[in-house]
Amino acid sequence: MKIGLIGLGRMGGNIARRLMHAGHEVVAYDRSAEAVTALAKDGAEAAHSLDDVRAKLGSPAIWWVMLPAGGPTEETIQAIGAGASDGDIIIDGGNTFYKDDIRRAKALADKGVHYVDVGTSGGVWGLERGYCMMIGGDVETVNLLDPIFDALAPGYGSIPRTPGRVAEAVDARAEKGYIHAGPAGAGHFVKMIHNGIEYGLMQAYAEGFDILKSKSSDKLPEDERFDLNLTDIAEVWRRGSVISSWLLDLTAIALAKDGMLEGFSGSVADSGEGQWTIDAAMEEKVPANVLTASLFARYRSRVDHTFGDKVLSAMRFGFGGHVEMPQ
Amino acid sequence: MKIGLIGLGRMGGNIARRLMHAGHEVVAYDRSAEAVTALAKDGAEAAHSLDDVRAKLGSPAIWWVMLPAGGPTEETIQAIGAGASDGDIIIDGGNTFYKDDIRRAKALADKGVHYVDVGTSGGVWGLERGYCMMIGGDVETVNLLDPIFDALAPGYGSIPRTPGRVAEAVDARAEKGYIHAGPAGAGHFVKMIHNGIEYGLMQAYAEGFDILKSKSSDKLPEDERFDLNLTDIAEVWRRGSVISSWLLDLTAIALAKDGMLEGFSGSVADSGEGQWTIDAAMEEKVPANVLTASLFARYRSRVDHTFGDKVLSAMRFGFGGHVEMPQ
Amino acid sequence: MKIGLIGLGRMGGNIARRLMHAGHEVVAYDRSAEAVTALAKDGAEAAHSLDDVRAKLGSPAIWWVMLPAGGPTEETIQAIGAGASDGDIIIDGGNTFYKDDIRRAKALADKGVHYVDVGTSGGVWGLERGYCMMIGGDVETVNLLDPIFDALAPGYGSIPRTPGRVAEAVDARAEKGYIHAGPAGAGHFVKMIHNGIEYGLMQAYAEGFDILKSKSSDKLPEDERFDLNLTDIAEVWRRGSVISSWLLDLTAIALAKDGMLEGFSGSVADSGEGQWTIDAAMEEKVPANVLTASLFARYRSRVDHTFGDKVLSAMRFGFGGHVEMPQ
Amino acid sequence: MKIGLIGLGRMGGNIARRLMHAGHEVVAYDRSAEAVTALAKDGAEAAHSLDDVRAKLGSPAIWWVMLPAGGPTEETIQAIGAGASDGDIIIDGGNTFYKDDIRRAKALADKGVHYVDVGTSGGVWGLERGYCMMIGGDVETVNLLDPIFDALAPGYGSIPRTPGRVAEAVDARAEKGYIHAGPAGAGHFVKMIHNGIEYGLMQAYAEGFDILKSKSSDKLPEDERFDLNLTDIAEVWRRGSVISSWLLDLTAIALAKDGMLEGFSGSVADSGEGQWTIDAAMEEKVPANVLTASLFARYRSRVDHTFGDKVLSAMRFGFGGHVEMPQ
Repeated sequence: MKIGLIGLGRMGGNIARRLMHAGHEVVAYDRSAEAVTALAKDGAEAAHSLDDVRAKLGSPAIWWVMLPAGGPTEETIQAIGAGASDGDIIIDGGNTFYKDDIRRAKALADKGVHYVDVGTSGGVWGLERGYCMMIGGDVETVNLLDPIFDALAPGYGSIPRTPGRVAEAVDARAEKGYIHAGPAGAGHFVKMIHNGIEYGLMQAYAEGFDILKSKSSDKLPEDERFDLNLTDIAEVWRRGSVISSWLLDLTAIALAKDGMLEGFSGSVADSGEGQWTIDAAMEEKVPANVLTASLFARYRSRVDHTFGDKVLSAMRFGFGGHVEMPQ
Repeated sequence: MKIGLIGLGRMGGNIARRLMHAGHEVVAYDRSAEAVTALAKDGAEAAHSLDDVRAKLGSPAIWWVMLPAGGPTEETIQAIGAGASDGDIIIDGGNTFYKDDIRRAKALADKGVHYVDVGTSGGVWGLERGYCMMIGGDVETVNLLDPIFDALAPGYGSIPRTPGRVAEAVDARAEKGYIHAGPAGAGHFVKMIHNGIEYGLMQAYAEGFDILKSKSSDKLPEDERFDLNLTDIAEVWRRGSVISSWLLDLTAIALAKDGMLEGFSGSVADSGEGQWTIDAAMEEKVPANVLTASLFARYRSRVDHTFGDKVLSAMRFGFGGHVEMPQ
Repeated sequence: MKIGLIGLGRMGGNIARRLMHAGHEVVAYDRSAEAVTALAKDGAEAAHSLDDVRAKLGSPAIWWVMLPAGGPTEETIQAIGAGASDGDIIIDGGNTFYKDDIRRAKALADKGVHYVDVGTSGGVWGLERGYCMMIGGDVETVNLLDPIFDALAPGYGSIPRTPGRVAEAVDARAEKGYIHAGPAGAGHFVKMIHNGIEYGLMQAYAEGFDILKSKSSDKLPEDERFDLNLTDIAEVWRRGSVISSWLLDLTAIALAKDGMLEGFSGSVADSGEGQWTIDAAMEEKVPANVLTASLFARYRSRVDHTFGDKVLSAMRFGFGGHVEMPQ
Repeated sequence: MKIGLIGLGRMGGNIARRLMHAGHEVVAYDRSAEAVTALAKDGAEAAHSLDDVRAKLGSPAIWWVMLPAGGPTEETIQAIGAGASDGDIIIDGGNTFYKDDIRRAKALADKGVHYVDVGTSGGVWGLERGYCMMIGGDVETVNLLDPIFDALAPGYGSIPRTPGRVAEAVDARAEKGYIHAGPAGAGHFVKMIHNGIEYGLMQAYAEGFDILKSKSSDKLPEDERFDLNLTDIAEVWRRGSVISSWLLDLTAIALAKDGMLEGFSGSVADSGEGQWTIDAAMEEKVPANVLTASLFARYRSRVDHTFGDKVLSAMRFGFGGHVEMPQ
């Protein structure tokens, strides 16, 4: 198939490459002419504007937008939508808030344009491993795009089949690494929860390794300390333990390089999806203490002292005359 | 009554003074001769060693130990116990772990010595306001000591009576500010939970004021900010609101002095009682998310970045090539 | 002053009464004719429709809307606004989301109508104790309404002045129990955080009393139990302790009636304000573990078993063959 | 090597079998004669008492105790230790609290007996996949037992090597699935944290799937619902996503059988290790909100309503006259 790829960053560029490896044609555009040139060298058809992409795609046009969520994605999809014709398809492969998908799909449907949201996991490893995709949109359009998703997905690979899985009852594509999750928005909703879980898993490992490391702290009495080798612990847990995972594999890689992780300060960013997951939990009245604590740990990692800490100090001084601890 | 007061720090000194105001006799001892001299000026009988106290108390002797929990209290009570005779009473008014009380009471009972644990709340305000006391020990001893507790307690004061309270069914002393909670250890157990709750209340205010203050942060879009006056907000909540409390009164005092609390860094200490409360919750299998989060917020206030934060950064770099946020 | 009171439920009715006690005139309207009649007996001028209220108020009209947040408030304010003239004032005294206030204030300002949002705390006790009010709106309008707020507020009462408070530097009204918090929306924003803190305070007490009660559980070894009297513990903490508060007073009242609280099942509702507080925390990137855990505890109180619990059981069966615990 | 295996339950029996497959000799004992007979059929030498095991092992004897932590393990190790001679080795492969290991190792060292603690992960899958082992003890003994550990461990298998791992700098055994973590107690300490992390990972998935499932709840407005297929979502996340893990594999198996998990009530047990992990965090002053919330979620899963919930209901009735929600 022929597809216009808008946004050639780390994710978009690799998605284009993986599509071309599978024999698809890519018309590539990015604000950065350099990025366009780089991808053209890898076989893409270079475009110099959205209009240029449209001209090169012909009709019906298939667009894959791979831009930062929020403003950049919104403006680009508005622009593409403005010039789109009946039967065109716009895919948003970024990290868009799912309620924006629902709104856009409705607006575009009025002029016969199909909107598909694709939650894409895989990070910088996707070019090689394939991308796990959670897709929202109408059935016909998602089916029509199957060759695209099939090319991007990891496929069966070496991952063992799930025993007891009855293929007829379920979406067979799941075993190849992509699913049609539901109508517009459902793809990004599932991806959002995926990221919420990701925060929780990461924080669970983070706290565990913190306790392991602090067991050698000189704040403990000398006979209560262990001097544990975190590099080996991460490695051994990859083998036959209940907590083996890909995130643990990555941790093992990092700890193999530097068992103290001294190259990292520990100021941790969070994207919108962690926050939206908590919003969804609250809308549904689902208790989500772990996912929330994981998000808050990131906020906390980025401030030296919260104002809340100072309120505590002030109260303690008020009732007990306590002066603050030296840090 | 005549009582030996061991430990003349902020708490012990004021307890002695409040006892003397009520007509009790105090034999005062502290490792610091200076502290002894100061209290002697206020009317106490100065003692220069535990033996000296014992000699001056006669028999049976009543001791009130008011020292830091752990080593200092343990050693002092061991020493007093070693020289004690049948009928003597040892009161631990500090923040001892309640299982230590149970152990001590058993050991002392073998030689006819009565052990009483008194959880004491009131901080630096107790001299004036009186102390709220939660008492553990055998009934006869606690009753015998009633004049002591009555003198230290706030009394009925101006606090409105609880409607519906049926005096006969309950411990009448509660309305004067002290209770006999149960056998040895029960006093400190109740005080321990008191402090656990205290952590939770403090953190609830701390988070709330943090959200109020951060509403003026330039991290927010300009039209989403409010520039709120925290000094006035704390003040107004003291009047007719559901969240009025003594801790809020103290917060209002602090904010009246400095609405930004710039004199505090926010490194917040925690005592054993917060931790023991969580231990008790776990022994009883009671979920205590708020009390635990409050304790952990204090741990977190004392480190710049946890090792856990670095583990997160390392994973994010691993899967997404994300570099860390500037702090 | 003359004011139209729309919504004569528990809160609205008492607000009307407190205003009339202070000499203000109230035109009263409610969907329930019965409620209107009841208030007319207490001295209000009965109205039978919003139009009737408008006619009776004359110009400029002052409206106080006291209805459930969301639909009922929105529709009523739309209707009042549609018929309002230059100089009219609409006060929303309910629990409206502050962003709705901002939107409404802008829309009404276009036709010269002033919008004031009042966060009102005090519950069923407000008639007697007075209401704590957090007010948003433009300075002139809030000042013009001062007699209204002054009548509703608790006043100085017997609450001790905050030492160190410098009247000139701050809003003098705070000491009477109301403040002008900022522009439209600021009143409800402060009230929202107030409620978020309220959740946290309540949960801190709840967890503490749960640990006290469970200390007598037969799940513990017999020699580790204490049989504690919660009624007396709540009472004694009201006197001189660090954790005395109005919420504790209410707990003491409930426990004086029934120390086991057997009349309550423990299914706890939550209003929008708890959730919005967490939204605000996330928008500002403020960690708020305690306030969030408090909200989630309420969600959890309303389900027998979450689906998440079942996921845990399924995993445990998967890796360990563990069958579930009998409950 | 020849080894006495005490405790032939799910774990112990399979450990014996895996050892025998690798050519080791096993003397098998269990309180249940049936369990002994069953293992004898698989090639073990049956024993009828600890003394019988000792006689059959000769000297020096190697024991592997695989019993429930606490009483059963403690008593058995006491009994074995009482009859042990210089050079004997006792391995505790269960879930013992690491401070008990330290105590036991010291006591046994006095009579020349070596104590080794082995934290063993792998559950019912270990027979086939091999066991991940974290080992504490003195270097010579752990090295001497290497053939045992090597036989039980998964070995390199098909798990990709960790890039950047420099074999010389680290414990080469980690890549085969076992490590010598440190002196006695270190093995169980690392295993304890492993289980703490396991709780956190499980709860992260549990909350995520709960939010996914509740998105179809009729508590939501109809146009805000998605009807998501959890079976397919678990499956697709196994392929190329950031959150793939063995626990997710198990979840996918469970959901393939029953997408609603209706066979599970959701009363979730917890073992000592979750609790001890929090104890360790508190001793080290490490904030561990996620691991703690995970443990508390299990406590909460086992009660209908906490007493804390009732305290909340009572307060809400007190200040607002609110009656409880129907559940």
